[in-house]
Amino acid sequence: MKTRELLSAVVASAAIIVASDATSPATEPFRTVDPNNLVLIDTKYGEVAVELAPQFAPKHVERLRALIHAHFYDGRSFYRVVDGFVAQGGAGEGTASTGGAKKGELTKQWPPLKAEFDAPIAGTFTPLGSPDLFAPEVGHIDGFPVARDKKDGRMWLIHCPGTFAFARDNGPDTASTEFYIVIGEAPRRLDRDLTAFGRVITGMQFLQNLQRGDPDVDNGVIHKPTTPDQIVRMRLAVDLPLKDRPSFDVTRTDTPAFEKVKEERRHPTSPFYFRKPPPILDVCLAPVKVKRVR
Amino acid sequence: MKTRELLSAVVASAAIIVASDATSPATEPFRTVDPNNLVLIDTKYGEVAVELAPQFAPKHVERLRALIHAHFYDGRSFYRVVDGFVAQGGAGEGTASTGGAKKGELTKQWPPLKAEFDAPIAGTFTPLGSPDLFAPEVGHIDGFPVARDKKDGRMWLIHCPGTFAFARDNGPDTASTEFYIVIGEAPRRLDRDLTAFGRVITGMQFLQNLQRGDPDVDNGVIHKPTTPDQIVRMRLAVDLPLKDRPSFDVTRTDTPAFEKVKEERRHPTSPFYFRKPPPILDVCLAPVKVKRVR
Repeated sequence: MKTRELLSAVVASAAIIVASDATSPATEPFRTVDPNNLVLIDTKYGEVAVELAPQFAPKHVERLRALIHAHFYDGRSFYRVVDGFVAQGGAGEGTASTGGAKKGELTKQWPPLKAEFDAPIAGTFTPLGSPDLFAPEVGHIDGFPVARDKKDGRMWLIHCPGTFAFARDNGPDTASTEFYIVIGEAPRRLDRDLTAFGRVITGMQFLQNLQRGDPDVDNGVIHKPTTPDQIVRMRLAVDLPLKDRPSFDVTRTDTPAFEKVKEERRHPTSPFYFRKPPPILDVCLAPVKVKRVR
Repeated sequence: MKTRELLSAVVASAAIIVASDATSPATEPFRTVDPNNLVLIDTKYGEVAVELAPQFAPKHVERLRALIHAHFYDGRSFYRVVDGFVAQGGAGEGTASTGGAKKGELTKQWPPLKAEFDAPIAGTFTPLGSPDLFAPEVGHIDGFPVARDKKDGRMWLIHCPGTFAFARDNGPDTASTEFYIVIGEAPRRLDRDLTAFGRVITGMQFLQNLQRGDPDVDNGVIHKPTTPDQIVRMRLAVDLPLKDRPSFDVTRTDTPAFEKVKEERRHPTSPFYFRKPPPILDVCLAPVKVKRVR
């Protein structure tokens, strides 16, 4: 019975994760990511894939696609990386030490965008089924973590680990080219106050490898002698020849199967849980899976 | 006015982080970490410092100190690392592919410990001042994120990014030598169901560099041909000669200054916030600062 012993030992030693994956039925329905909405960011550590959500910020998505087509990001850097918070990339406007662009230089070519902090309620929204402290209602649309307010009829993307958004100045309508990706505990205080319009679907661990800045010095902007890591290139999957184009499937969040997965998280049946946890699910921890298909 | 322009540009480009650090008054009182409770974990990426909280799990702290003195961890590995969740280290019991210990081999020398999932309420607890979905009451003791239940008179450490705990098998009283550190969004469902007894005070970014396992294969245990990263060595600061011993100060969380910092987070006065966020503070994001003094 050697195999059996080994198996049981493996399960035992790794037991603290029992609940994280065993709950996903093999038959769970998936949705294929539209290559028009699939951004591929090459870093020296590996490829990061971001799915865009144009329904939340159509003008920002249009701008990002234009920037990608202009090769704006290629060879630029993640010039401000704060551990546990965000990785910010682009031209590093004003960050002289990183060879950043001069203030005003970029906005001539890429005029500031009108904020798209939220959008009219639309799409197939599935409630999380758990309360939330930051929004009247939270749940998912197409695997994206979404908050809504039925009173004013608006919805917005939630800041979870992996959320992709545009940085801005102090005014609301000041985003132009710079982006950030959340790399730590969900900074929910930023919800609906910056324009979020995508999420990382694979490659978070490569962003976690990025050179960090010191949060106490210039807000985490990386200064000499430290060199920020490059955005080697950024591409839109649809622009790649079909044979080179990766493809991803993402859990459909509007199905009974996903309800079951969430229910198992709220009321885990695994024998690992000695004390049953409170029946609460963090919207940022709902197990939305991603499979690379090609 | 060149300097001024540059400054304003820097602030502008990095504006999305304005609220993260500017709120901490210079006069904020600090507490020095007891070197008896200061664990130093060397990885090839850098040093990780963990502060232990013996008041939450005295027997586990005693065991960890004994394991460190026996050089148990030195040269072993972070054999199970799940991005966005945990880095688990130790002997890798049962994880044959990583040269892990055989089941039962360790527990002869290091008998399973009685669970210390919670402890009697004690110490200077400061309420967070924000509601929480997972516990009746949350706040801080000595900078540690703590939950309490006055009904049964118990308190426990919260699973935040950086929380240090012992892994276990399915039974509650089965932890022996293996530890994990939370490296992603707070997995609150584990609260009070594993013995947590410390938190990383510096070096999280080095843990984020660790080689990852595939969460869909053997719960994230790292398998060949991938090699897990080593725990180069683990030491207790008090065992180092004074001249080599690092020293850290941590924000005192029982002062009016800390109340002010939390209040500024709940009601930010920074002009960056266009729409004032909901006046809620995530206990895992309360700005407890750490300074390396020596």
